[in-house]
Amino acid sequence: MTNDYPSYLLEKAVEAFNSLPGIGRRTALRLALHMLRQPNDDVARFCDSISQFREEVKHCSVCHNISDNEVCDICSNPHRDKATICVVQNVQDVIAIENTHQYNGLYHVLGGIISPMDGIGPSDLTIEELVERVASGEVKEVIMALSSTTDGETTRFFISRKLEPYNVTITTIASGISVGEELEYTDEITLGRSIVNRVKI
Amino acid sequence: MTNDYPSYLLEKAVEAFNSLPGIGRRTALRLALHMLRQPNDDVARFCDSISQFREEVKHCSVCHNISDNEVCDICSNPHRDKATICVVQNVQDVIAIENTHQYNGLYHVLGGIISPMDGIGPSDLTIEELVERVASGEVKEVIMALSSTTDGETTRFFISRKLEPYNVTITTIASGISVGEELEYTDEITLGRSIVNRVKI
Repeated sequence: MTNDYPSYLLEKAVEAFNSLPGIGRRTALRLALHMLRQPNDDVARFCDSISQFREEVKHCSVCHNISDNEVCDICSNPHRDKATICVVQNVQDVIAIENTHQYNGLYHVLGGIISPMDGIGPSDLTIEELVERVASGEVKEVIMALSSTTDGETTRFFISRKLEPYNVTITTIASGISVGEELEYTDEITLGRSIVNRVKI
Repeated sequence: MTNDYPSYLLEKAVEAFNSLPGIGRRTALRLALHMLRQPNDDVARFCDSISQFREEVKHCSVCHNISDNEVCDICSNPHRDKATICVVQNVQDVIAIENTHQYNGLYHVLGGIISPMDGIGPSDLTIEELVERVASGEVKEVIMALSSTTDGETTRFFISRKLEPYNVTITTIASGISVGEELEYTDEITLGRSIVNRVKI
């Protein structure tokens, strides 16, 4: 199917877009031809934004979130509670939690989750760095905000064990029914957990 | 919603992907973070493919299809029937017809379709160039392969009138029921046209 395109340059552009996750060849063709209709400067700016991001973006030396500086805006914000660390899998999760406006502590981005199936072990993540942060003594609570999956459970268990020697409260975000969800359609495991973890009103 | 991202560079990259048609902010974020996990070289190659395509791609001086050369591979192919021109709206249509392997003539890419609603008139398209090709005398048949829409009909009518003075057969691709489609579910206009345009077997 490589000789479909009337131009080698078009083919390379389609291949480029096709290499992105979730973008098939048909959409890739549409995107490439869309580029052709944009002014040259806009396309140059598109490419610059992406390559500059790839080349220049840093990770915060404290929490490993994406950052423009050595230490990110959250870690360097004097108004945030430095005694609480929320452990998350990736950058998207930081953005998602920040969007709730319900959390004022710091984060720790693991950079993934322990997954024997995908060959990701504890040493591939920033778990040692988390232990160091906790060992420094300033931290009082570590909130585990990991997915409710087997890999999430494994990672939570592993980190909890690592943090046992330190005088720190370990919590996990609540499982339960979604806001606006009907009981009838909630799966039994989630519903069961929401009963076990009931809260006083 | 602009201050959501932990990094200005990330924000610019998300905006870049978000500027593509059909890609929302959430997908754009996923694509930007995907880029971060790719080797630097791969990202550079991605950007090069796109900017090179935008800067260097040519349009065939004969049929206006995308081409790496002054004249495209189809127009310069000695085995193709130079007496037949298939008029299409855009590059995708050339690719679609080529993929059928049922056509061995040349093409003429209009670069759009007459659409008063979108402010596209005959002078925005390569209609004059088509008339010149036909006027040169080599062409015996012009096949209109335009969409079966009002704008398609208008364009077809306009071009037919323009080609009237020349000794050339003007045809249009057949309308009718799709292969594999059940009569029961075919709309009446299409079904009606398939009866009017019935062919001898």
